[in-house]
Order: sequence, then C-alpha cells, then structure tokens
Amino acid sequence: QHFSIAAIPGDGIGPEVMAEGLKTLTKIGELHGGIHFSIDSFDWNCDYYLKHGKMMPGNGLKILRDYDVILLGAIGAPTVPDHISVWELILPIRRTFQQYINLRPIKLLRGLDSPLRYKAHHDLDFVVIRENTEGEYSNMGGRLHENTPFELAVQNNVFTRYGTERVIKYAYSLAEKRNKKRLTAATKSNGINFSMPFWDEIVKEVSRTHPSIRTDIYHIDALAAYFITRPEELDVVVASNLFGDILTDLGAAIVGGLGLAPSGNINPEKTYPSMFEPIHGSAPDIAGKGIANPIAQIWSLSLMMQHLGFPDMADLIVESIEEVLLEGKVSTRDLGGKHTTFEMGSAIREQMTSR
Amino acid sequence: QHFSIAAIPGDGIGPEVMAEGLKTLTKIGELHGGIHFSIDSFDWNCDYYLKHGKMMPGNGLKILRDYDVILLGAIGAPTVPDHISVWELILPIRRTFQQYINLRPIKLLRGLDSPLRYKAHHDLDFVVIRENTEGEYSNMGGRLHENTPFELAVQNNVFTRYGTERVIKYAYSLAEKRNKKRLTAATKSNGINFSMPFWDEIVKEVSRTHPSIRTDIYHIDALAAYFITRPEELDVVVASNLFGDILTDLGAAIVGGLGLAPSGNINPEKTYPSMFEPIHGSAPDIAGKGIANPIAQIWSLSLMMQHLGFPDMADLIVESIEEVLLEGKVSTRDLGGKHTTFEMGSAIREQMTSR
Ligand SMILES: CC(C)[C@H](C(=O)O)[C@@H](O)C(=O)O
Ligand SMILES: CC(C)[C@H](C(=O)O)[C@@H](O)C(=O)O
Repeated sequence: QHFSIAAIPGDGIGPEVMAEGLKTLTKIGELHGGIHFSIDSFDWNCDYYLKHGKMMPGNGLKILRDYDVILLGAIGAPTVPDHISVWELILPIRRTFQQYINLRPIKLLRGLDSPLRYKAHHDLDFVVIRENTEGEYSNMGGRLHENTPFELAVQNNVFTRYGTERVIKYAYSLAEKRNKKRLTAATKSNGINFSMPFWDEIVKEVSRTHPSIRTDIYHIDALAAYFITRPEELDVVVASNLFGDILTDLGAAIVGGLGLAPSGNINPEKTYPSMFEPIHGSAPDIAGKGIANPIAQIWSLSLMMQHLGFPDMADLIVESIEEVLLEGKVSTRDLGGKHTTFEMGSAIREQMTSR
Repeated sequence: QHFSIAAIPGDGIGPEVMAEGLKTLTKIGELHGGIHFSIDSFDWNCDYYLKHGKMMPGNGLKILRDYDVILLGAIGAPTVPDHISVWELILPIRRTFQQYINLRPIKLLRGLDSPLRYKAHHDLDFVVIRENTEGEYSNMGGRLHENTPFELAVQNNVFTRYGTERVIKYAYSLAEKRNKKRLTAATKSNGINFSMPFWDEIVKEVSRTHPSIRTDIYHIDALAAYFITRPEELDVVVASNLFGDILTDLGAAIVGGLGLAPSGNINPEKTYPSMFEPIHGSAPDIAGKGIANPIAQIWSLSLMMQHLGFPDMADLIVESIEEVLLEGKVSTRDLGGKHTTFEMGSAIREQMTSR
C-alpha cells in the first residue's frame, strides 16, 4: 500500500524531532514490506512568514489536500505572535480538513514514573477526545473603544449541534471499544451558562443511545483536580476545544511530560488528510541543540498507523519506546538523561528492528 | 471594633461547615477582646428556590449591602440546575459588590503531603488572583435554530480594560509585597485570538510600572502542566475568571484537596462587603453525615481577618489548623481519618485557645 505524507517540520525543535520521525517512518516501511511512504517536506513556519508575510502559500491548503496524512513538528517562534502562526497554519488545517477529533492518549509508559506520588502504571491509561474545530477557538470577536478607558474585547464561543454531536458520538463509540465502559465529559455549565448547558444536553442525548456506557459530567475545575486525585477511574474523556487543550497538557504532565505526548487530528471519514503531531510546542529555549525528546513525534506515528489501519505497527512503535525507557540506557534531558534527539530516535528504531 | 456578618450556609455540606466557621468566629471574638461580630444567617439556597422560585428575595442584594462581610458555605443541589443556583446567588453577589479579586492561596500546610511525588512544603506556597466579575462568565449569549440540526449556542467572553486592569494591578501590588518578585499570568492568546491578546497587552502595560517584578505569561495549558512540574517557581498567578477557576481547583488538588482550600471574593476598596467561602462545592454525596472537612471554611475566616486588618488573628487561624494537622490526632475522611466536622472544628479552636 502506498501513502503520501506531507511533513511540516515547523519551528524551533520541530525540525529536530521531525527528522527522527521521518527516519522512523522509513523504518516502518522497511519492517512492514507492504507499506510504502512517499514524503514531501514543506518549509512553512515562522521564518517563511517573515519572508513572505504569510505562514504558507495562498494555495497551501489545496496542496495539502492531496496527501493521505500530514505530519507536523511544532509551530511558533518569538519573532511572530502566536495567534498569527497558529491561526494561519495549524488551525486552518484542523478546520479545513474537518479534523474534528483531536485524539490524545494519556498513558504512563513502562519505564517512567508519574510525578503523582500514589499512582502506578495501571492507574494512568486513558484517552482524551478533544473537539478540534469550533468552540472557544472561534476566530469570532473583536474590540471596541480602542485607546480609551472603555476599551473592551469580545470573543465568541460558538458551539454547533453538528460540531458537538459528532465529537461526542465519536467519543462514545471509542468508549464502546474499551474496557471500562466509562465516558467523562468536561463542562462548566454552572459558570458558562449558554454554551456549556447546550454541550451537556447533547452529551445526555447521545448517552441515551449508549446505555452500557457509564457517563459522568464534571465541571472542568473539578475534572482538572480529578486528573490528580483519581485518574485511574478515567477511560474516555470528551472535552471542548479549550478544555481538551488544558486537560491534555495536564495529562501529559502526570504521565511524564510534554516531551512524550502525541496527538492525532483526525478526520474519521478520511474525506481529508488527518494530521499527527506532538502536543509540545517549538521550545525555542532548547532549539538547535539536538537535545529535544523525539518520543512525542515518534509516538504520533503510532496514532497515524492506527488511523491508516495497521494496529500491529502502531503497537510495535509504542512497545519499542517503552522498551527503551525500561532499559534506561538512553534518556533525553527532559527525562533526566543526557542523550541527544538522534540517540533516542536510533534506540527506538533499533528496538523496532529487533522485535 | 464591631463587624456585621451575613452568613449564607447554603446547600449540602454548606450548613455543616458553616456551623464550625461561626463557632470559630465566636472564638476569634473571645480571644481578641477588641473585636465583636454580630452574625445574621440567611437560608437562601436551593430549598429556598424550590419554595419561592428564586434563590434569594428580590431585595436580597440590598439586604447584604449593609453588612461588612458575607460568609458563604456552599451552593448547589441536584434539584436545581447549577447555572440557576449559581447565577442567582453567588455570581450576582460577586458582581454587584465589585468583588473583583478572587484571592486563593495555594499553600501546602505542614502536616500534609502533596500528591506530587517530588514536592515538599516549601515548594508549594503561592497565591492565585482570579478575575471575578467578567470574562468567560459573561451571562451573554444564546441559542439559534433550536430543535433543528443547525442549532447552535453562542457565549460571549467579555474582557473590559477596566475589569482587566484592576485585577492585574492588584496582582502586581501583591507581588510587590511578597518575596519572590514574580508574577505569572495565564493566557491562551494563541488559540483565543481576540480576548486573550487583549489580556496579554494589559499585563505587559502594567508590568512596565513594576520593573522589579519578573513577569511570565504562560498559555493556560502549559501553566496547568507547570502546576505539576514546577510549582515551586510560582508566587503570584493572575488569571481570568475561567482560568483562575480551573487553576485553583488544580492548586487545591496539589496541596491536599478541596476540603482545605479557602477563597476570598474581595472588594479591595471596601465600598461593598467582601465574601469569604470554601472553594469546594456542596458535596451532596456526603451531606448530612457530619463528616465534611471544615478546614476550607475556617481557613477562609483567616482571609477575612486579613481583609479586615487583623493579620495576627489571620495567622493564628492558619497556624492552629497546621498544628492540628501536624499532631494528626484529628483527621476527617478526606484526609484519611474518621473524625467528624465538629471534632475537626473543635480541635482547631482548642489550638487557637492554647497558643
Ligand atoms: C460554583 C461555580 C460557578 C464557582 C465558579 O466557577 O466560580 C466555583 O467553582 C468556584 O470556584 O467558586
Ligand atoms: C498551538 C495551540 C493553538 C495548540 C492548541 O491550543 O490547540 C496547542 O496548544 C495544542 O494543544 O495543539
């Protein structure tokens, strides 16, 4: 089978971790035999913006449209305001390609300790399904009375039934496939009194069609605390765009850090390309040193293989990462070690070969 | 000095923890000599709503207006939707009385362990200043196309310069009084592209008038992770209404739980009464059993005494709570013990007397 891949390494440590990702992709092709990847790289990032006044060419989305999958490194640099780099590259891709599922596993890999004192491996293994196209990231709003004491800014949160239903339905169908038969929805309907009660209603509606799944609706403040106190009870968490964003960074923190956490921006219908990326950002402070942890990028390939229909290869990637962590011979700075991005990537690929 | 107190015990465990709060208030009066409290209690809660169709009488706010301080237990019951109970009682009080500062200490008391494996007492001692009158809790928005597939709900986030400046200025003036000279502002200006860049601009403006304070602006997702990985670096955190809400529950979790965390809804100018309350909710599941932890309620009296200008009494309360926790003889269920709400309250009051 042939798959075309668009790689956007991006800024900061993006290109460094992407390099390890792409080598790992080649390794997957070698090991499987029946899969062939063709990879095109695109230099769309903040440097590109400084040269061209935009983050990607005018027909950038049209170009990406024809690929099977997009791989992203990280976007963002001190030279360009975040809301520009993000709103001209990542968010248009997520939206235009209807990648309405942002799937983020929160799983403590063997070989790592959680910073939570009382939690072991089997306590930390759940998935956050984040809405990825609307909600709090609306791009709708503005300012009034600029440069006066009466200045104000308004931002609309926009929740559609269409957008809300599809993500909640997806989350339930995922819960049906997992063991605990539990779904936890994040809300804040006590404080945010129009959009979040609407969200709750749709959760309750969809829950009625899944009688075997236990549903809990938690306010986001309580749920954030829950991630610390009782994460072992969680199985599938479904959340709006903003709440999912917050919960997944928090989730990454309780399972060992942002250097590890992968994410899939998925269009389940495969009408458009899906995009796989680390949760972490471009980390300008450590960029160029070759010391960033490539695990998040490599793990995101596992989510990609799952999406493309190769669960065995998906498992092989995660198991190989775990094996390297368990052995503990190679470890990047964020994990307390001194090895380079390249050494970590190589160690994982060696494991993949030897399994 | 004489102070008039309006007590609203509320729902669930509210009345149980409030009872201990009021006894502790009496104790403060006894110990200080120069302070006299007169207390009026109000039965405004969800039962009241079921009887009268509203959470408080039409002139409720007018009644409260004349008190020096409001003490709240907890509001919320399964019988009344949260957005009603909250939007007809807590939020109108916070807004009408311009309690624009929600002050929430995140402090690991001696005698308790953090659930964070690598963090000790001196690592966990900071304050979150939460905006308390506007932002994401706007009560502005609505629905369109109800009962069609095209239904949608919109909620406005409204950030005014007036509302944003005053809370950020307060946070800086607090940072000036503390040791670390650091202020960390929560934002999400990469995803939420009108209101949050506005917030950031005002942080930067105000920061220029406080050159001795180090300012960091973090996206809320990264900051939530930061609460787990490096809380020892935090000193004053300033956040919008929603972000402050999330961060303070998370903060409560890392310092031992919601049973402990106090909060002050403060009108710094004292034009209107301020309100002190636990962060926790009404916990219907354990209500009526007399086992709730009253520490959050009692600690909130310490914030009240600070606000009223009695720092020694404020310290006495916190030190007495710490002493009881250190001794470990009395402990409520949330802390792994079996003692009652009353026993915990009594133990704290005994400590206060014997110091
Ligand atoms: C009850 C609810 C609206 C409230 C809030 O979100 O402000 C509570 O969670 C709090 O933190 O005081
Ligand atoms: C870069 C930013 C807009 C993005 C988000 O908030 O979605 C990132 O934090 C993420 O989690 O993918």
